Amino acid sequence: MEFDLQQTIALLSRTPSALNALLRDLPQAWTLGNEGGKTWSAFDIVGHLIHGERTDWMARARIILQYDESRPFDPFDRLVQERESQGKSLTELLDEFASLRSQNVDALRAMNLQPKDFDRHGRHPALGVVTLSQLLATWAVHDMTHLHQLSRVMAYQYREAVGPWSTYLGVLHCQGHGS
Amino acid sequence: MEFDLQQTIALLSRTPSALNALLRDLPQAWTLGNEGGKTWSAFDIVGHLIHGERTDWMARARIILQYDESRPFDPFDRLVQERESQGKSLTELLDEFASLRSQNVDALRAMNLQPKDFDRHGRHPALGVVTLSQLLATWAVHDMTHLHQLSRVMAYQYREAVGPWSTYLGVLHCQGHGS
Repeated sequence: MEFDLQQTIALLSRTPSALNALLRDLPQAWTLGNEGGKTWSAFDIVGHLIHGERTDWMARARIILQYDESRPFDPFDRLVQERESQGKSLTELLDEFASLRSQNVDALRAMNLQPKDFDRHGRHPALGVVTLSQLLATWAVHDMTHLHQLSRVMAYQYREAVGPWSTYLGVLHCQGHGS
Repeated sequence: MEFDLQQTIALLSRTPSALNALLRDLPQAWTLGNEGGKTWSAFDIVGHLIHGERTDWMARARIILQYDESRPFDPFDRLVQERESQGKSLTELLDEFASLRSQNVDALRAMNLQPKDFDRHGRHPALGVVTLSQLLATWAVHDMTHLHQLSRVMAYQYREAVGPWSTYLGVLHCQGHGS
């Protein structure tokens, strides 16, 4: 489907409550387990989503509306959330994500964007010229990419417990996709 | 981690509300779109989860407790939910899934299973001998495999709208894993 602002907002608005319903008060064996080494747990993924709300999506939308292609976006540091999440509980992170997302969606609505705005250009430091609609669509798909990762990380905790059923459980055969 | 009944129940109990938070009243472009051909939409996935609640997980647990290996499980028909979902709205399916899952988790608790029960054997028509704990772990991971699929199917609807960002969005490069 083509980009649609209302449909994008509908999805963006639901992600925090979906994660909250899945993760709040879930035993830590599910939420702190990762896929080994420096891979991310559910806790880390929520921290990453928070960092995006703070520094990425709306900040870049504002750069496009103010500077067009003349000012490239600031690069997004995918690792900084480790510091920001330190000492917090998952419950705190879930609340923080819900609050920031709600503020950002309100700010997006307040921009009162018109169809002609969606083609405005920005400059991504690595990808080159992108449009405002591509940025907003990516915001929503970024939620899905991390829900995809989250379901894989949680399934991984039971990769041995399922025994021979492993063959049938596609999520246990996902090697990630650079997400 | 090793199989743990309470941790399994904790995850099983949360899936219906997570799907409800994500999907209820979401525009149909997200919930009825599939990945082309006869692939499944979000609507189809919820129908499949309902069918599992009706005919698979607890039915198989009861067969293990009553017959051990002497009676193989009935094969699970992955396609029958198409008929069962016909004419229903996604809202109805979400309510039905929540209600059936809640009944099944109550029934599982009422079995008052003890650690020695988890090693009891059943016979899967294709996989051979399996244990009760493997069945229950698979029930939980099966939720995750379909959350994995759901996030991929929804992301697919915006595969073109994201433009050059597609490179960075792992979920758009998932080819499924036989799930």
